Amino acid sequence: TTTIDFSSCSMILVFVSIVSPAAERLRYILGDDDDLHTPTLFTEMDTLQHDGDELEWKESARWVKFEEKVEEGGERWSKPHVSTLSLHSLFELRTCLQTGAVLLDLEGYSLPQIVDDVIEKQIEDGMIGLEMRDKISFVLLRKHRHQTKKPIHRSLADMGKSGSSAREYSDSCLHFLSHRSMNDIADAPSTDQLKNKFMKKIPRDAEASNVLVGEVDFLDKPFVAFVRLSQATTLGGLTEVPVPTRFLFILLGPPGKAKSYNEIGRAIATLMVDDLFSDVAYRARDREDLIAGIDEFLDEVIVLPPGEWDPKIRIEPPKKVPSADKRKSVFSLNELGQMNGTAGGGGGLSDDEEMPVPHELGEELAFTGRFCGGLYLDIKRKLPWLASDFYEGFHIQSISAVLFIYLGCITNAITFGGLLGDATDNYQGVMESFLGTSLAGTVFCLFSGQPLIILSSTGPILIFEKLLFEFSKSNGIDYMELRLWIGLHSCIQCFFLVATDASYIIKYMTRFTEEGFSSLISFIFISDAIKKMIGAFKYYPINTDFKPDYITAYKCECMAPEPSEFILALDWTQLSKKECVKYGGSLVGKSCKYVPDLALMSFILFFGTYSMTVSLKKFKFSRYFPTKLRKLISDFSIFMSIMTFVGLDMFMGLKTPKLIVPTEFKPTRSDRGWVVLPFGKNPWWVYLASFVPALLVTILIFMDQQISAVIVNRKENKLKKGCGYHLDLLWVGVLMAVCSFMGLPWYVAATVISIAHIDSLKMESESSAPGEQPQFLGVREQRLTGILVFVLTGVSIFLAPILQFIPMPVLYGVFLYMGVASLSGIQFWDRIKLYMMPSKHQPDFAYLRHVPLRRVHLFTLVQIMCLVVLWVLKSTFLAIIFPVMILGLMVVRKMLDMVFSQHDLAWLDDLLPEKEKKTKDDEKKKKTKKKCKVVDDSEDEVGVALEWWLRVVCVS
Amino acid sequence: TTTIDFSSCSMILVFVSIVSPAAERLRYILGDDDDLHTPTLFTEMDTLQHDGDELEWKESARWVKFEEKVEEGGERWSKPHVSTLSLHSLFELRTCLQTGAVLLDLEGYSLPQIVDDVIEKQIEDGMIGLEMRDKISFVLLRKHRHQTKKPIHRSLADMGKSGSSAREYSDSCLHFLSHRSMNDIADAPSTDQLKNKFMKKIPRDAEASNVLVGEVDFLDKPFVAFVRLSQATTLGGLTEVPVPTRFLFILLGPPGKAKSYNEIGRAIATLMVDDLFSDVAYRARDREDLIAGIDEFLDEVIVLPPGEWDPKIRIEPPKKVPSADKRKSVFSLNELGQMNGTAGGGGGLSDDEEMPVPHELGEELAFTGRFCGGLYLDIKRKLPWLASDFYEGFHIQSISAVLFIYLGCITNAITFGGLLGDATDNYQGVMESFLGTSLAGTVFCLFSGQPLIILSSTGPILIFEKLLFEFSKSNGIDYMELRLWIGLHSCIQCFFLVATDASYIIKYMTRFTEEGFSSLISFIFISDAIKKMIGAFKYYPINTDFKPDYITAYKCECMAPEPSEFILALDWTQLSKKECVKYGGSLVGKSCKYVPDLALMSFILFFGTYSMTVSLKKFKFSRYFPTKLRKLISDFSIFMSIMTFVGLDMFMGLKTPKLIVPTEFKPTRSDRGWVVLPFGKNPWWVYLASFVPALLVTILIFMDQQISAVIVNRKENKLKKGCGYHLDLLWVGVLMAVCSFMGLPWYVAATVISIAHIDSLKMESESSAPGEQPQFLGVREQRLTGILVFVLTGVSIFLAPILQFIPMPVLYGVFLYMGVASLSGIQFWDRIKLYMMPSKHQPDFAYLRHVPLRRVHLFTLVQIMCLVVLWVLKSTFLAIIFPVMILGLMVVRKMLDMVFSQHDLAWLDDLLPEKEKKTKDDEKKKKTKKKCKVVDDSEDEVGVALEWWLRVVCVS
Repeated sequence: TTTIDFSSCSMILVFVSIVSPAAERLRYILGDDDDLHTPTLFTEMDTLQHDGDELEWKESARWVKFEEKVEEGGERWSKPHVSTLSLHSLFELRTCLQTGAVLLDLEGYSLPQIVDDVIEKQIEDGMIGLEMRDKISFVLLRKHRHQTKKPIHRSLADMGKSGSSAREYSDSCLHFLSHRSMNDIADAPSTDQLKNKFMKKIPRDAEASNVLVGEVDFLDKPFVAFVRLSQATTLGGLTEVPVPTRFLFILLGPPGKAKSYNEIGRAIATLMVDDLFSDVAYRARDREDLIAGIDEFLDEVIVLPPGEWDPKIRIEPPKKVPSADKRKSVFSLNELGQMNGTAGGGGGLSDDEEMPVPHELGEELAFTGRFCGGLYLDIKRKLPWLASDFYEGFHIQSISAVLFIYLGCITNAITFGGLLGDATDNYQGVMESFLGTSLAGTVFCLFSGQPLIILSSTGPILIFEKLLFEFSKSNGIDYMELRLWIGLHSCIQCFFLVATDASYIIKYMTRFTEEGFSSLISFIFISDAIKKMIGAFKYYPINTDFKPDYITAYKCECMAPEPSEFILALDWTQLSKKECVKYGGSLVGKSCKYVPDLALMSFILFFGTYSMTVSLKKFKFSRYFPTKLRKLISDFSIFMSIMTFVGLDMFMGLKTPKLIVPTEFKPTRSDRGWVVLPFGKNPWWVYLASFVPALLVTILIFMDQQISAVIVNRKENKLKKGCGYHLDLLWVGVLMAVCSFMGLPWYVAATVISIAHIDSLKMESESSAPGEQPQFLGVREQRLTGILVFVLTGVSIFLAPILQFIPMPVLYGVFLYMGVASLSGIQFWDRIKLYMMPSKHQPDFAYLRHVPLRRVHLFTLVQIMCLVVLWVLKSTFLAIIFPVMILGLMVVRKMLDMVFSQHDLAWLDDLLPEKEKKTKDDEKKKKTKKKCKVVDDSEDEVGVALEWWLRVVCVS
Repeated sequence: TTTIDFSSCSMILVFVSIVSPAAERLRYILGDDDDLHTPTLFTEMDTLQHDGDELEWKESARWVKFEEKVEEGGERWSKPHVSTLSLHSLFELRTCLQTGAVLLDLEGYSLPQIVDDVIEKQIEDGMIGLEMRDKISFVLLRKHRHQTKKPIHRSLADMGKSGSSAREYSDSCLHFLSHRSMNDIADAPSTDQLKNKFMKKIPRDAEASNVLVGEVDFLDKPFVAFVRLSQATTLGGLTEVPVPTRFLFILLGPPGKAKSYNEIGRAIATLMVDDLFSDVAYRARDREDLIAGIDEFLDEVIVLPPGEWDPKIRIEPPKKVPSADKRKSVFSLNELGQMNGTAGGGGGLSDDEEMPVPHELGEELAFTGRFCGGLYLDIKRKLPWLASDFYEGFHIQSISAVLFIYLGCITNAITFGGLLGDATDNYQGVMESFLGTSLAGTVFCLFSGQPLIILSSTGPILIFEKLLFEFSKSNGIDYMELRLWIGLHSCIQCFFLVATDASYIIKYMTRFTEEGFSSLISFIFISDAIKKMIGAFKYYPINTDFKPDYITAYKCECMAPEPSEFILALDWTQLSKKECVKYGGSLVGKSCKYVPDLALMSFILFFGTYSMTVSLKKFKFSRYFPTKLRKLISDFSIFMSIMTFVGLDMFMGLKTPKLIVPTEFKPTRSDRGWVVLPFGKNPWWVYLASFVPALLVTILIFMDQQISAVIVNRKENKLKKGCGYHLDLLWVGVLMAVCSFMGLPWYVAATVISIAHIDSLKMESESSAPGEQPQFLGVREQRLTGILVFVLTGVSIFLAPILQFIPMPVLYGVFLYMGVASLSGIQFWDRIKLYMMPSKHQPDFAYLRHVPLRRVHLFTLVQIMCLVVLWVLKSTFLAIIFPVMILGLMVVRKMLDMVFSQHDLAWLDDLLPEKEKKTKDDEKKKKTKKKCKVVDDSEDEVGVALEWWLRVVCVS
């Protein structure tokens, strides 16, 4: 029964460049006062309900940003969803505003007065007759029932009395002519309003717009009014929440068209919460401005074809919506028309020229050219944050982070402590490892440039110590003294690197290098965890031949040694396994080699901890329980998993291997003290010669430290307090010297644990408007969690009675989780997964829209091959120069410039710094010279060196 | 630079009821010939590319139903997505059609000729000058490059030669004036076209519409043409696939507006695949008809507000789209305008009056009133399907179903066989269980009305046998003979029930009863599986005090009994545990009580099988691997999990409990044969008195059988071949008698295994158009899988060497999976989950839109309480009448009529049959008489009985 005739629409076409009058108007009203901030609008739509003979306004939907609808019958709020409108209703709304009353900046203090004014205006304009005044007023002043309230209770007694017709109100309202009692609206906000918890979802400065639509039988044409009050005013129980009303849209019409009215109401409500239209509504000077606002809205709408979409589906709010500022800028910047034709989005060519945001390099890595220039800037940058670095640590999330990282650190300390003890004949053992971790970590977290980095022993250092110890032993050189001198030399070399701003070199590290390195470290973590688990099956061999019925055949007896001359007065059968071996006895029996249950129990603990952690982490995205509880569960997932499986282990009571920390504060070897003296044990030339191995240590530390720092400082982590590569290196150097003097292990940044630290401190916005996605805000940058972790590590010797309940397999499960978790979110890993996906199922990654799939696969393949080579090298003695191999990755990356276009690399990786300025030149050059690119001007040494090397490669 | 001025649109508003001229036109052209079928349109959009100095048409998007775009740079197809258009482009398209050339029913045999005709027409109309003829023709006849082809290869040599300007073509084309060589288009389809695998996604009768858009620098206003050929013609390499072209849309325009042209092209392409518009396009008589089609399209579009949606997001195709017929019916039925205002959908009131589809009761359960009337209908219904019941079983899916159900069946046979053996002193043991299962199952699957039902022993029968055996033993009555007579009586009673169509009673079973029963059975399955698992920990106790070091202290020795008079010449230490106990020795030692590893290994096998099955089932929805492989993995998930964990078990080599089937064909007790004689052992009155226990057995069997049948025949399963409640019961009765004669257990339908059977045979459509969701088509209804399962069960005694590798915990894992899987998809279970979800996270279930949440929760609570009561009863001796308790559920359901409105029940449950006719009356009555509803007319006995009972309850 209702259609729009498009045939008379006059249109200004693509082919003529003219700014429409609508846009002209908008530019005028929006362009002027850019500083004027318009409040957020909360919109409520109430529809007129005929409940028997009573009339009331019932809330049917509300908008903060997205639509929430009252489910009919459901008496509940729907999920927030995108308002899908019909084009029809928008055009009808447009006509409504063209023909109805528009009252802008009305002085209003109460609803009755406003209603009077509106009706007066309509009568003045000759839109309605005088006789309608009271009927309309009666209807508009009926009580408003909001969704928070239960439906009106009707007792049985009431039902008996009122058998009268539903249409009686039109008579009854005549009886109340000009009475104020016909007003059901209170002046002050009700307790229901004040108690409404929805208030916290609405910004403080918000104002309300109320949409009232309904059908009444006394009208034969619609009664439409759009009101803007000069001041936002609380109009009693009009709105669900105690928010002052600024706008009022009224549509009453003859019966039979309720659906259409409803749709028109939804259309104006959706417009009112539109950022652009609400600005227009606030600043409109007349009716035409509002209509121009609608026209502009219409020009930007996204249209879904009726045959490809079911209008009944509620569209979930998107993760991101285009910013309002961008839309508004069209008007202020005189760039109208830019927006047109972009709605095709997914389909159109509109994203054709887009390039990814380039990798930003801050001043942190600029080469100052001054002595200690970088260090000075680092300190200058970090100093102002010092206080906040502490008070910002007070948050519940910090507790979970501390527990998580603490457990990771002590597991690491014990593992490396044990390995170092083996490698150095206990010169550095578990005790040294604990003390060193605690000392180095605390100092670094207190004073470093990036306190989110967690220091730890790393593999290369371990290998170096092992080689060094063997060398000393075989050459009769005192190991501890030699080590002290290497540490001192290395410390001085670090200072030199700091003073010369050498860290700036790492700006040549792109995503390719970063992700290659961190993936490799993650794989090592994962493989170590699994290796340790498999170790349990070797350490506790299972007797697979065991037959329950032949239990009588299984025993293990200690037999006295054959030449019984040496037999002590021992009851050999009473000796334990160890004692038996100790006293020279031999163990005889089928069960000697085997340990029952422990291997399988270890596996259950290991795998259980890992899978439970993964499941609980995912629980954040489940539908169950309120958001806050889910977040808590997700934050404490590791802690909860550890507790569960420690509990299970205690319940089972099996002697699984437990975490044993040293309980006494003394060096592992009794023949060494806490201080290593620099002179006296080795010849003088050793003091000088140790410069050479120190150089290797320095490179090793430099690379390991700075690449971890780059990964931590990734732009995806949205760090706000800046970093301090030079300052970090300074402290690593200082700690080298201190640790060497005390005979403690050396420490550098540990990639995986640092990533875990960051992950456990990630912040998300409390979503404000219903349906809006929480945004990743950044990381809780502070020094407190790190300091606490390492102080706790230090006092672990007192916590031994508690820690001894934690089985090692549980901790290996945590390690496995750390390794796997640090892989997620790495683009490289996403790209590996693409190999296994048919292209139609691949996620809509930005780079897949722009780079051909085979190029993406090729790029991934190169990365995989690099990792395989590194993995193989790592398994040889070359592991010692492992961090140096990163340089190799950087060279490979440089060579990729010849295989991939800068466009592809920009999407898959970042562009190398010196390229940025001449990307465009390069692209042009590529057209003619494809085979071997010659770069003419390079500003810096590294660039030149790499370039030179490539040229050699190209030529040969 | 381009805007639409809406201000001059004249609109016919809601408030005036006039059918628009557009709709009038459409009704005229669409309403006439309803029988004319229009082919599906495949639409391809090609854009003009300036590749250096070459011009070519490059495919940029295609549509079967949804849009697939060629990713720029990506050189790949995007995922199919909903075409999001801008309103702007639609209006521009409208203007294009108003001003451009429209050639309908052009006689076209080749592209050059068509192009000539189009240009001629434009020149005639004075739209373009003569001098444009050749230039336009040259451009339009350039080669078309489709996405299937690799980009044109350019050798280095070529690059050297052609350094000329990109704009040279306009000159060069002049050289080829009036040459046919300027035509790059071949006449016959190329091999690329013929080889294109995409063809299988396009219906056979499809025709193509080609959209060509591009910018050229010699035009100063756009050149637009819409061509419909009188016959669909293959125009050489124009289209990617060898589909004949029917429509051609050409838009060439001056440079600088490529984006706009592109959007217009997308708009017409989207319109061409719209069901309604394509009909219009096929039947349009003139330009105005096409424009009317656009107007109608515009009137139905769904609009997303620009501030709430990012146009860059590609919208995934919805699961379901509104059917085109519904949209078209508007015109044929003169109901225009019905569609208007419904686009609000999710938000609007449009779904207000909807009621769920009522529970359909076919003739299967009609009361015929004739002797064996129902049975006769059952046979008549099933007979025509007999042949297809066999040949439709030949499908790969059947293999996985057979393996899955077979393993379930033998596990069940072994479990129940063992329990029955214990209960009846081995009168019925594992051997009888296997034979009976095989015999009963095969016969039932061959002849029954619903061969998807799997027969099995059930709990109530087991309890009955146990009580009966104890009774016989204590009263000196021969158990087997008594059992035979009970079976015979019960068989006759079943025949009586069949003859009198008694099964019609189960039409009073609604979703409430069905889901209550099947949830309960599922919970029993789950709890049994877990109980059995826990049993392993009791059966193989773990020595939790074991200290690896004190292995010497653990032994278990067999000691000769104290009074050593009786000592045989035995080496007591060499005896096994069993032998030791047998000869009266005592076991002494710390390890006697314990069995290492087996309990934990059992747990790993149990939990592993379950979780792997769940993960693999879910794998169907993952992104990895092609759809077919994923489906295969999902179909064979149970088999693969079993194989994996059987493999793990073999690898570990532990003596976990294995599946042991009997290997010899003889009764478990040697003192009984395969036939039970009816007379001779008991006094004569026992033959008559056994009528009474037989009555209990009959009710038990009737309820258990028919409720399982109802669950299997659920409308959600979309069974097409009908069912046969009476026929089923007949065969269950016959089998009762046969099994009694042979001394085999009795069999009825097993709910959980039957559901598993159905689940493993579900069919989905191969999705046709890209992006269309596969639809659930129904179940592979046939007799073959069932027969195979039971034949395999029968020959299991020969499969013993293979089956003995399967550990029991693996099978318990399968049981757990069956129990959990049969819970999924049950609305009751969904509603239980709602308790734990905050309302904003709840899924968009239809009933949640219509029934208040607290009513939903109340309904669920009633169900939960019923189940708890049933569970408690089941744990007592009342378990024997367990299926009878279903009657109790039906009574509760009847009482719910007083608590819930018919509207709510229609959404949450089904309406009870006798209510259907007077639902509306009832609703009115409710308004006045709320407390106790009096029902006046009830046609049938059960209804009357329930009604009467309720009346008593109400009054008291």
